[in-house]
Amino acid sequence: MSVTAAKGFRAAGIAAGIKDSGNPDLALVVNTGPRQAAAGVFTSNRVKAAPVLWSEQVLKGGTVSAVVLNSGGANACTGPKGFQDTHATAEKVAEVLDLNAGEVAVASTGLIGVLLPMDKLLPGVETAAAQLSEHGGEKAAIAIKTTDTVHKTAVHEGDGWTVGGMAKGAGMLAPGLATMLVVLTTDADLDGDVLDRALRDATKVTFDRVDSDGCMSTNDTVLLLASGASRVTPAYAEFAEAVRAVCDDLGQQLIRDAEGASKDIKVEVINAASEADAVEVGRSIARNNLLKCAIHGEDPNWGRVLSAIGTTAAAFEPDRLNVAINGVWVCKNGSVGEDRDRVDMRYREVRITADLAAGTESAVIWTNDLTADYVHENSAYSS
Amino acid sequence: MSVTAAKGFRAAGIAAGIKDSGNPDLALVVNTGPRQAAAGVFTSNRVKAAPVLWSEQVLKGGTVSAVVLNSGGANACTGPKGFQDTHATAEKVAEVLDLNAGEVAVASTGLIGVLLPMDKLLPGVETAAAQLSEHGGEKAAIAIKTTDTVHKTAVHEGDGWTVGGMAKGAGMLAPGLATMLVVLTTDADLDGDVLDRALRDATKVTFDRVDSDGCMSTNDTVLLLASGASRVTPAYAEFAEAVRAVCDDLGQQLIRDAEGASKDIKVEVINAASEADAVEVGRSIARNNLLKCAIHGEDPNWGRVLSAIGTTAAAFEPDRLNVAINGVWVCKNGSVGEDRDRVDMRYREVRITADLAAGTESAVIWTNDLTADYVHENSAYSS
Repeated sequence: MSVTAAKGFRAAGIAAGIKDSGNPDLALVVNTGPRQAAAGVFTSNRVKAAPVLWSEQVLKGGTVSAVVLNSGGANACTGPKGFQDTHATAEKVAEVLDLNAGEVAVASTGLIGVLLPMDKLLPGVETAAAQLSEHGGEKAAIAIKTTDTVHKTAVHEGDGWTVGGMAKGAGMLAPGLATMLVVLTTDADLDGDVLDRALRDATKVTFDRVDSDGCMSTNDTVLLLASGASRVTPAYAEFAEAVRAVCDDLGQQLIRDAEGASKDIKVEVINAASEADAVEVGRSIARNNLLKCAIHGEDPNWGRVLSAIGTTAAAFEPDRLNVAINGVWVCKNGSVGEDRDRVDMRYREVRITADLAAGTESAVIWTNDLTADYVHENSAYSS
Repeated sequence: MSVTAAKGFRAAGIAAGIKDSGNPDLALVVNTGPRQAAAGVFTSNRVKAAPVLWSEQVLKGGTVSAVVLNSGGANACTGPKGFQDTHATAEKVAEVLDLNAGEVAVASTGLIGVLLPMDKLLPGVETAAAQLSEHGGEKAAIAIKTTDTVHKTAVHEGDGWTVGGMAKGAGMLAPGLATMLVVLTTDADLDGDVLDRALRDATKVTFDRVDSDGCMSTNDTVLLLASGASRVTPAYAEFAEAVRAVCDDLGQQLIRDAEGASKDIKVEVINAASEADAVEVGRSIARNNLLKCAIHGEDPNWGRVLSAIGTTAAAFEPDRLNVAINGVWVCKNGSVGEDRDRVDMRYREVRITADLAAGTESAVIWTNDLTADYVHENSAYSS
């Protein structure tokens, strides 16, 4: 289903030879219209990969006719030559599909600091273009994997319209808008401004709150393309909820496939003075390596939750903090609460609830445990 | 040598039975004068352990006659009972040594959220007091160990005066002023204001720049006690340099003994627009889990350095950044530099130099690699 669930899109995924492994590494998504509206959010890392710099410019034009994505190399920190390579990739897509290069977005993922093998990538564009299909979404999703063990797709069916999408991401997952490569498509008949609003509203509470390892990528890209092929213009609230649901679904898949993880940790911060406070506290908890190790060991070590909360500027009084792990309030009023032996941590999902007792706002941040497998995978990285 | 290197101090370290292992867990340091000047810096974590709250008050009085320290329990997040226990510990020391409890500092380290076994701790104070000796510094240093594999002491000899000290710390090492338990002693004849200035000047560039795992403790305490027993009043610059040297020495020992670490990483940020920028960038690099894994794997993955720099607000242009690993400039002008295969990473110390090309300021942050052993140790923590 993926990016071809909505009408008006064709896609392909092929092995261009960018990866030494011979696995698929090049994807193409084409919007056949009738309209080519688009919105995008990108990493807020100030060190941006060449394809991010390029695609930000493309999005400013408001029209995206095609997206070309590669795994096997991030094309980040590659200087002027890297930017020329991104440009040449867009030009190649434009040439093969008879489009304007200024309407071709580019996304790359893989190792930073390595130039792409253009002698393989450019012929790959031709191969992919020849395989474009209304059923190609699955293959495209497979071709953007790096350390992902599974490909990620999601679909939401509206009343006569559809939102679908694909995502990749397994490490370097931390908010800085997106945290991964994501392409969403819809056949709803909407303009770029509406897409932009819906996408920002959605990523703010989904991808922006997925924080696997606190490391922000140079390549994060989330695109939303609309073909208008359904001829239906849904109400904003309905459409925005569909986009949020698809982003949430994909975000959950990213967490479940995070590098080396054995636990998915839902950090709920409740009774905060503001949503910003709730997010700050949730992120501080989610990034605490000691806590993440404890959760890996199925140790309900709430002291590490409190020490993480204590490093924030959020409104709270230390002696009013309450913490539950999987529903057991192991910390009450900043001190020892219910018996920690009552906490059952055998299952993959672990829920940490931090009650700031300072207001009525809340937020959820998703993270993972820290494992020896994460260390192993990232001390010998290859895409 | 430790805390009894300087004249005017006695110390002891004993096994009070706080630790199930039966290892030493209680230390006592007494300033026999003629003066009892003192200064202290404490964690900036807003969730502060009971002994930190107590000792902060003691320091406000300006006089510290004795310090009692225990491992085997942090007495953090233990509510009013925890504070009562700290108070009772100080009272016991005062009673046994005929002091004022308001002049007895208390420091604790170990698991958070567990009440101390006062039935063992209080008798332990009596035992320790009976063993106080001018040669007891080593035993005191041993008694404050938790996951430390070695005890840490340092001494600097001035002209007729001495600064010595002991430290413990192996995990939860991140600046929030101190990051560990440290007691420094001197027989220099100086008042509390001079001690305070020298201690803050020293910790700012030593313990505050040791960041093993980004996790800030609830118990960090660094005390500096002066007995005046040498009858020598050194010049400020000379004394401050001695304090800095001892703090630096102890900080290095903490890094070398950090939990699970196989590499000590010196992050040098140069040519920054301000020292604050240099520290911010250095800390961001030092806390990047992906980079720390790469260093563990002896992989000179400079892309992860750039992505860490990119998350900061420091002044820099991405295409002017340069990065050297062990002296090889693997990144030049934000892009591929010298051959990464030339980087020799076989040795324990690894030096990462980040050139922001934005000014003339610099800073050094020390950290460690992230290893499977760190995960193991912290998923099954016991002091």
